[in-house]
Amino acid sequence: MKIVEALAAIPLFQGMNSEQLQKLALIVADQRYSRGQAIFAEGDAGVGFYVVISGKVKIFKLSSEGKEQILHVFGSGEPFAEAAVFAGSCFPAHAMALETSRIFFFPRLKFTLLIQENPALAMNMMAALSMRLKKFASLIESLSLKEVPGRLAVHLLLLAEEQERDEVRLDLTKSHLASLLGTIPETLSRILTKMTKADMIATNGPSITLLNRDALEALASGEERL
Amino acid sequence: MKIVEALAAIPLFQGMNSEQLQKLALIVADQRYSRGQAIFAEGDAGVGFYVVISGKVKIFKLSSEGKEQILHVFGSGEPFAEAAVFAGSCFPAHAMALETSRIFFFPRLKFTLLIQENPALAMNMMAALSMRLKKFASLIESLSLKEVPGRLAVHLLLLAEEQERDEVRLDLTKSHLASLLGTIPETLSRILTKMTKADMIATNGPSITLLNRDALEALASGEERL
Repeated sequence: MKIVEALAAIPLFQGMNSEQLQKLALIVADQRYSRGQAIFAEGDAGVGFYVVISGKVKIFKLSSEGKEQILHVFGSGEPFAEAAVFAGSCFPAHAMALETSRIFFFPRLKFTLLIQENPALAMNMMAALSMRLKKFASLIESLSLKEVPGRLAVHLLLLAEEQERDEVRLDLTKSHLASLLGTIPETLSRILTKMTKADMIATNGPSITLLNRDALEALASGEERL
Repeated sequence: MKIVEALAAIPLFQGMNSEQLQKLALIVADQRYSRGQAIFAEGDAGVGFYVVISGKVKIFKLSSEGKEQILHVFGSGEPFAEAAVFAGSCFPAHAMALETSRIFFFPRLKFTLLIQENPALAMNMMAALSMRLKKFASLIESLSLKEVPGRLAVHLLLLAEEQERDEVRLDLTKSHLASLLGTIPETLSRILTKMTKADMIATNGPSITLLNRDALEALASGEERL
């Protein structure tokens, strides 16, 4: 596959016009790795980011005893090391090809210059990232709306028991509580709003008043859905 | 809250240093909307994007009969219209404040100029978006690993029945199949790899050979987990 065609198929570069793709193609290093070949090591300077075109790459850490812990396996179309490189930090883990792989390397410096000359390119990348993020967020919502309300109800009932009153104070930040419940803050907020509309709770800043324990208990036991 | 402090709390701008936040603060329009006040209408030029600082905003479409369909409700810290604005298109829906809201408006032109002068700012935003995307992807994986392997097994067994052979051809793209199963292509790939390692299937391009129907049926019925 030609470089421009391969670039057009990468979600990160979705929606770019052919002129933008041509410019991007000029700074790409088209690399091949064989199975087991190292791509970078933890602590190396983040001189650029990568996108897997074909093949597979593992990202891993090594314990002090040399034991390997795989953090992620990336396949076709997926970028790696880009978060570290965009943020200007070192590679936080090792990367190695798991099979014969074709990988595009985007040097940080050239990429930064390209954005400076073509801010529309950065805007486009941010649009692609934002759109993926929204799609992912709505998928998380539909996946977690099944079980999260029940888990939240359990948490609220336990808090009420511990604090021995119906008006409980959340002991965690919303973001912490969301990840504890296996969801994201946006979905947690939506669940709280739904519970409020159903007159199960009333919220007041970091305080939540349990208005209908029976309904919360039915949610917690899985008998009812929100 | 001061503008710079409010900016620092927005996930989209996470990891920016105070100099970058100061620059960003210079182009922000700090707006207040009252309950029911329109923010923009579908088809308006995408002259900038918004971030909710406090309050709530609904994004909605109107049918030809004037019936409202809410697409999304955004709360504190969430950007809206940014995907359209980054991509340079019109607003694809209406936006209205659901309650008294403080909203930051980022004019597209000034924002583009700012990125041109400070490409590091765009890099940082892309880093923040990428990191959120990775976090979301791994959450989707952990949420969908429960049910998706079973649904995929059902799909493969049905295909084998329809095509009357053990080597079936996938009739959909991986991305289409993933969304049908309620997951993302990355997780679907990982499930296929797991099934291959468990000798349930063998993949060969768009063809999948069912090697162990009993194991797939156990997955499909929910008796077994992958």
